[in-house]
Amino acid sequence: MNSRTRFLLACERKPLDRPPIWIMRQAGRYLPEYRQLKEKHGFLKLVQTPELAAEVTLQPLRRFKLDAAILFCDILVIPEAMGQPYRFRDGGGIEMEYKLDSKEKVERLTSHSVADQLQYVANAIQLVRKDLGQEKAIIGFGGSPWTLATYMVEGGSSKDFAGIKNLFYTDYQLFNHLLEKITNALISYFEMQIDAGVDVIQIFDSWAGILTPHTYWDASAKYIHRIIQKIGDRIPIIVFAKGAHHWKDELIKTEAPVLGLDWTYPIAKFHDDLQGRVAVQGNLDPVLLNTTPEVVIRETQTLLQSMKGRPGYIFNLGHGILPQAKLECFEALVDTVIHFDKSK
Amino acid sequence: MNSRTRFLLACERKPLDRPPIWIMRQAGRYLPEYRQLKEKHGFLKLVQTPELAAEVTLQPLRRFKLDAAILFCDILVIPEAMGQPYRFRDGGGIEMEYKLDSKEKVERLTSHSVADQLQYVANAIQLVRKDLGQEKAIIGFGGSPWTLATYMVEGGSSKDFAGIKNLFYTDYQLFNHLLEKITNALISYFEMQIDAGVDVIQIFDSWAGILTPHTYWDASAKYIHRIIQKIGDRIPIIVFAKGAHHWKDELIKTEAPVLGLDWTYPIAKFHDDLQGRVAVQGNLDPVLLNTTPEVVIRETQTLLQSMKGRPGYIFNLGHGILPQAKLECFEALVDTVIHFDKSK
Repeated sequence: MNSRTRFLLACERKPLDRPPIWIMRQAGRYLPEYRQLKEKHGFLKLVQTPELAAEVTLQPLRRFKLDAAILFCDILVIPEAMGQPYRFRDGGGIEMEYKLDSKEKVERLTSHSVADQLQYVANAIQLVRKDLGQEKAIIGFGGSPWTLATYMVEGGSSKDFAGIKNLFYTDYQLFNHLLEKITNALISYFEMQIDAGVDVIQIFDSWAGILTPHTYWDASAKYIHRIIQKIGDRIPIIVFAKGAHHWKDELIKTEAPVLGLDWTYPIAKFHDDLQGRVAVQGNLDPVLLNTTPEVVIRETQTLLQSMKGRPGYIFNLGHGILPQAKLECFEALVDTVIHFDKSK
Repeated sequence: MNSRTRFLLACERKPLDRPPIWIMRQAGRYLPEYRQLKEKHGFLKLVQTPELAAEVTLQPLRRFKLDAAILFCDILVIPEAMGQPYRFRDGGGIEMEYKLDSKEKVERLTSHSVADQLQYVANAIQLVRKDLGQEKAIIGFGGSPWTLATYMVEGGSSKDFAGIKNLFYTDYQLFNHLLEKITNALISYFEMQIDAGVDVIQIFDSWAGILTPHTYWDASAKYIHRIIQKIGDRIPIIVFAKGAHHWKDELIKTEAPVLGLDWTYPIAKFHDDLQGRVAVQGNLDPVLLNTTPEVVIRETQTLLQSMKGRPGYIFNLGHGILPQAKLECFEALVDTVIHFDKSK
């Protein structure tokens, strides 16, 4: 069975001898060859040049026997294509060119030309597909409407998310108007990714966890649901709502066929909570890849053992791999997963 | 019934007409009179001068009908008293004078003179008691051993906690040695606070939530348990483990009589999950105090309604009040709680 088939069968919750594996941020800073390219060209040029984005996407697959490539890109290309550019702060974190702090600024954003402006993403996907053929799965991605809105309203990275929550609580009409616009932009963006050949799309709801139980649906999950209603019949969608595993009812209501899980909850229990009706993805603590191969092997085996007899499972970390991760730990991780013998 | 009695009865899970209320960081930056004092003296001088610390502690009680005062202090006075000083970075966040990155540095820390060095805390508590008499409850506090260790090993605020987790996974003996030292320091510190007259102690496990389900006990909860075994028969202990409500078994095993809850889980459900055997505290989203009195009143009433018929409840936010909170929202919050008529 090739990797792509394995990946798609896992999304359909079919029993497999071992789960497919990919790693969030597998194309990234822990790889010396990535750091070299980034130093030479800068992050934004890597994202915007199809040949470079494809090269970076493929780098981890040359080193490790991963089952899927995830397109090298950034969630903030969407606000940029809507008319709100961004940059990386020197001290770390994101800074948008301006804050969305008035109705006028929200009005000025446009969802219409997103696919045109982000054509380079489609081109990069096509190059990756040309290289990988049908052997490996290709994952497209984007941020959730809520997560993108946090950056757009706060004007960048935030600590307390007071601006976006304030908007939610005091002017839901404007909040909803903004989120609808982002949702529409994402739908055309994802359709373009699918047309270009991705097999799966992951929606990163990275800031889900700062919401409250009775606001998660209205602030975030319902817009994800709208996206899935539009594109979910074409390919499987993975929803990774960080810090939100306890809002199971809302996550199920999004109709995502796969739910990602961070490292703070046992994934076997999560699978049981979902009564096997949804596939799950995760959830090794990313920091483990900064330790030693022995520790990685031990913890990975424990995780794999816990998922035995629970079909519908994609192996991953519980969040992105860290820049200081060690290559020998990554190697040990992949080896442990692909040689896992579930009969033992 | 006076406020102190109300507070202590809530800790014992006795039925009350309305819950007692205090607010995390109620002595802090949202208050103009606090900002004035801080500008004049600087944060560390406010902490270290008993008259000033007492004054800051009392400020919110002069404005609002709160049931408890929480001592104005900082969790990092413990590493400082153990031999690892700290400062606030200009750009925000904490910076310790050095990182604990070797066995020698851990050895050099001392737990013995903590109570002597932090005598100013006892003096501040006595001044607060003198002012409040037995009318109000006085809350002492400290960081959990795990939470303090994160700052000490990372050398300050951290994003991924790779250093402390690495130590945990690769050298548990040294990790344990460090955590034991911090635990011992905390025990003498809390004993001193109790001798000085606090009615309750809250342990802030602010970084609980970055652990994993099967490490929470060994990395954090077991040290909290040791503290409670030592001092828990003298006064009630509130354990506030942020982001960790789903590790109920471990939280229950700490034997804390009160568990604080952040805003990400319904507190009535949390109370039910604990089968009424533990009192709970929380959990309004702090950001609400940045909105409008109308929104605050609506959300507060919803929360209070949900807790009807569930004795063992202390009203609070789900985390510290933000610097941009509005005084009229705070006022609306307190009024709503103290005039709540649970018969309606």
